[in-house]
Amino acid sequence: MGKQMEIICVGNELLIGKTLNTNATWMAKRATSLGMEVRRITVVRDDPDEIAKVTLEALKRKPSFLITTGGLGPTFDDKTLEGISKALGSKLEVNEKALEMVKGKYEAYMKEAKIEKVDLTPPRIKMAKLLEKSEPLNNPVGTAPGVMIDVKGVTLVALPGVPSEMRTIFEESIVPMLKKKAGDVTFFETSIFADSIMESTLAPLIDQVMHNNPWVYIKSHPKGEEDKPHVELHFSTTAKESRTAKNHLQNAIIGLSELVEKNGGTVRIQKRKQ
Amino acid sequence: MGKQMEIICVGNELLIGKTLNTNATWMAKRATSLGMEVRRITVVRDDPDEIAKVTLEALKRKPSFLITTGGLGPTFDDKTLEGISKALGSKLEVNEKALEMVKGKYEAYMKEAKIEKVDLTPPRIKMAKLLEKSEPLNNPVGTAPGVMIDVKGVTLVALPGVPSEMRTIFEESIVPMLKKKAGDVTFFETSIFADSIMESTLAPLIDQVMHNNPWVYIKSHPKGEEDKPHVELHFSTTAKESRTAKNHLQNAIIGLSELVEKNGGTVRIQKRKQ
Repeated sequence: MGKQMEIICVGNELLIGKTLNTNATWMAKRATSLGMEVRRITVVRDDPDEIAKVTLEALKRKPSFLITTGGLGPTFDDKTLEGISKALGSKLEVNEKALEMVKGKYEAYMKEAKIEKVDLTPPRIKMAKLLEKSEPLNNPVGTAPGVMIDVKGVTLVALPGVPSEMRTIFEESIVPMLKKKAGDVTFFETSIFADSIMESTLAPLIDQVMHNNPWVYIKSHPKGEEDKPHVELHFSTTAKESRTAKNHLQNAIIGLSELVEKNGGTVRIQKRKQ
Repeated sequence: MGKQMEIICVGNELLIGKTLNTNATWMAKRATSLGMEVRRITVVRDDPDEIAKVTLEALKRKPSFLITTGGLGPTFDDKTLEGISKALGSKLEVNEKALEMVKGKYEAYMKEAKIEKVDLTPPRIKMAKLLEKSEPLNNPVGTAPGVMIDVKGVTLVALPGVPSEMRTIFEESIVPMLKKKAGDVTFFETSIFADSIMESTLAPLIDQVMHNNPWVYIKSHPKGEEDKPHVELHFSTTAKESRTAKNHLQNAIIGLSELVEKNGGTVRIQKRKQ
């Protein structure tokens, strides 16, 4: 199970429906494209006990990577590390490397903004208080560093919730590790669209094509009403060589297209304009 | 804990980053606006064992409502009810009321589309195979009915993943129940924006204002870089009377605005244009 990954998103704004969880989608897409399997995404509120609970639950499932987003900032409700430290039974302590990072950031801000001396107030020092034995991850576009720690073989990484910061740290520090873990396998996907055939008619045809093409996963997504059927057919596969992947996808697409047309439907390669 | 709700989203498309989870955000926002507290959102793949596992985990936490979206359609990978039936140790059986609903839909489609007789094939009957002792929920805009069942005091509801279908069933069948459960309490929220003050400087000011306004929850969301600070300050509260809520929010907003300006920042009521 070396390719499994889980994502935990921390933030009340996600649970009150204020913010769309674009972080989870972006990270899942990026990790999948590298051949990882994202098994679960869990969204919890800014509460250390809740964060501790979901962290422990996820650690028990032993993914290779467990990545959290959100809750690393300077405010009182940035509680992700407090939650993780509860889960691990370890303390939060000022990490010298992280403190240098945070200090450097504020010195640069001061210079840029030509404002008076900025003190390392408790909220600023908070961002350098990391888990014992953890590593800070450089944040090139913000202040709070990411945090990485090995927990009995699970690489646990805490990233900020600000999308630009999360993405930059992910690309710089996590992607190289994922590539190593997933090997040379990459994820390939494509969609075609079927008209004039109901999803319930498509169901057994998809079954048949997947049976004949064991490397390809096909999923139907209805986009119209059943009386004006328009169904996206999403094909995906993983392979070492892109040529192999393309061949697998192509065979499955041809197989399903033939069956769709035999059953009175038509196939197009782009979504129908509504 | 009568107002707690959990959401489980089923679908590989969410875990490979193909689809943004707008369903979870919409449902969380709608339920929150009625005074419910969404405690957790979990995304899992189309796998009956996984679905069974997360269902059992959520049921143990005893929310008033546990709502799933996705996986109710006619194809082989629509596995939500199979998963829930595993969790509950109950069987799936053709529900006569649901079968009438599905049959009625297909008869209407036939008429509309002027196509030949549509049989109730196994994929179509599948949509009427519900949990023992469950109730089908009318789906006015699609085929697969929603499903509702009481599990030892937890109202467990399975809704389709197609957004229009999910929303319509939710409004028609779930909202009246949520209103009853949450009582007359409603959720109120608003945001202001602070410029020229860093989030780390805001942190203790927010603490102070929340301490003085115990009914109001304030959360900061940085929108700019720390050297050109632009921070959204989101205020929320629940109350029976909208006048009470507005008073509470207003007091907190005035208190925080004063502190922001005392500390060299400025306050505006709209987001800065980038």
